[in-house]
Formats: sequence, C-alpha cells, structure tokens
Amino acid sequence: MKITKEKAAENRQTLVETAARLFREKGMDGVGVAEISKAAGLTHGALYAHFPSKDALAAEAMQFSTRAAYGKVTERPVTLPELIAFYLAPQQRDNLADGCPLAAAASEVARQDAAVGAGYTAGLRQMADYIAQQLPPEQRGRALGIMAALIGAVGVSRNVYKSDPELANEVLESVHSMLLSLN
Amino acid sequence: MKITKEKAAENRQTLVETAARLFREKGMDGVGVAEISKAAGLTHGALYAHFPSKDALAAEAMQFSTRAAYGKVTERPVTLPELIAFYLAPQQRDNLADGCPLAAAASEVARQDAAVGAGYTAGLRQMADYIAQQLPPEQRGRALGIMAALIGAVGVSRNVYKSDPELANEVLESVHSMLLSLN
Repeated sequence: MKITKEKAAENRQTLVETAARLFREKGMDGVGVAEISKAAGLTHGALYAHFPSKDALAAEAMQFSTRAAYGKVTERPVTLPELIAFYLAPQQRDNLADGCPLAAAASEVARQDAAVGAGYTAGLRQMADYIAQQLPPEQRGRALGIMAALIGAVGVSRNVYKSDPELANEVLESVHSMLLSLN
Repeated sequence: MKITKEKAAENRQTLVETAARLFREKGMDGVGVAEISKAAGLTHGALYAHFPSKDALAAEAMQFSTRAAYGKVTERPVTLPELIAFYLAPQQRDNLADGCPLAAAASEVARQDAAVGAGYTAGLRQMADYIAQQLPPEQRGRALGIMAALIGAVGVSRNVYKSDPELANEVLESVHSMLLSLN
C-alpha cells in the first residue's frame, strides 16, 4: 500500500515524538525499535523506512526533545529564580517521559552514538546561553555550572525516590537553596 | 564438578566486581548477564547459582561499588576543596568503569529495581555525611546539593565530551568555581 507524502511525514514525526518520550521514560538502552514502532502504531519496517538505525532515530529524538523542552521553558519570559524553581519542582522530578531530556539521560548519552551527543550538546548550550543572559556579565561562566547542578539534582532525586522519598525532596531543596545563595 | 566453598565465594566476588565495572562502563541496561558472566570467566549457570536475577546482582554491585568508591575517597583525610577537585578532575570524567558509581548511573537507577536504588541511596548518604562533617553546622544541609552538583557535572561533561571536549572541560570548571565560591 502506497502512502501519501503527508502521511509519511506524519508517521515520521510520530516516530520521533514517541521515541523522545520512551527514551526518557525507559532509558536510551532500555527501549528498542520494536517497542517504539509498536507504541507509535507502526510496523518495524515503517520505522526502518524513515531511519537507517536506532542511533539515527535516537539522535533525532534528542534534537526534538531538547528543542521542545527549551521552547516550553522559554515560551514566556522567566527570571532565573523562576526557572530554577520550575526545574526543581517535585512534579518535574516525577515526570520522566515529559521532563527535561538533559536530566533524563544525564548518564546515558556518553555511551551513545556521537550524533546523539551532538543533540545533547546543542540542547545544553541553548539552556546555558539562556541562563547566561540573565546573569551579570562577570558571572556568565556560571551558567554551565547551574545547568549541571539542576541536571544532577533531578537525576539524583529520581534515583533515591523509591527508597527514600524524603531524601529525594531534600536533594531538590538543597540544590535550590545552594543556587539561590550564589552571588 | 563440585567446587569448594572458598572457590564459590571467590567466583561470587568476581561476579560482583565484574558487574560493578561493566554497569558503570556500559550502563545498567547496556549489559546483560551473559556478557557479565563471560567477562568474569564463568558460565551463565554459575551466575544464576549465586544470584536469582540480574536485579539481585545489580543491587549487590551497586552496594559494592559505592562502598569501594567511598573507601577510595576517604582512605586518607581530604579537605572539601580537595574532594571537589578530585571528583571534577578530567581523569575522573574519562574513567567510566572505575569512576564514581553515583555519577555513572546518574539517570539510570530510577528505572531499576528498588534494591538497586537502596544501594545508591546508602552511597549518596555516606558521601553527603562525609561532606557535611567538613561544613560548619549551619551549612550542613548543603552537602546533598554539593553531591548533586558534582554528579551532574561529571554526567553532563561525559555526555558532551565526544562532540565538544572543550565544553566538557568548561562544565567541570564551572561547577568547580561555583562550589568553591559558596560561602
């Protein structure tokens, strides 16, 4: 069955969005192409018609999710304290599939294809630049440190949540007050 | 072939140490029991004689590696600035298999069995307590934030290293100067 160009483009986008969610929820090595195509309502073959490999899909999913996350954060002007509070909110910690892709893959991208890393790097730079714009010129070098601390906070808080939800909240609060006390 | 109790205990320990290295190097979902038993020079069956499941082995590997890392960090007295410099050194970033297990699995433990999370939580508490002892009483709540920032720095730096090694170093330096500027 031949499908239209429009339908093919729609299928492609569904695959990217589905992959972006599943990679965050289950981990970059925790989900395969069979599960992604099934969740997208397509066949394995349809996936390979659009992407030569899981790596190619993962690279595009990383680009898509970092851009979408950046768009969500910056759709209205936010101050740096607002951004920090948003990022460190327990609801953000509890939302793996829709949360920040930079935190969801904090320890995973180093082991992936270089193209996945390129998407991660672009996403990190974009967020760090946004933060830098809100810092006085002499403190702009701190933007990367703030992003790394936010990413670490969410990752660590998620990791300890099942065994110690109180400690998980303390991690978020500790990073929060640490970042607000910077001067 | 019957093996002695001593040999069985030795095989068990080899499996734990091999798993601890491979989980850090390849990710918690990036390596399976077949590869771990092979790398330990044992059979699949020998692994299952000691551990009922991959989760059980992963939980013990997490306990082992967090304790070993804590032992390595604290074998001689170190000041907090020394610990921060050690943790954020590029050699530590470049050493996945032998580096800090809290950073190697920064985004992965949340998706694992609760027993793996318990080992991670104990390891985090131990490190945070060690840091807290070096802080003035009114700043001890910051210890968790410092650990989260260190873990985030190493994870993010590794993630961007392949596509931008210079940015990878800037991440480490930015967190370093941010943590030293806290007062």
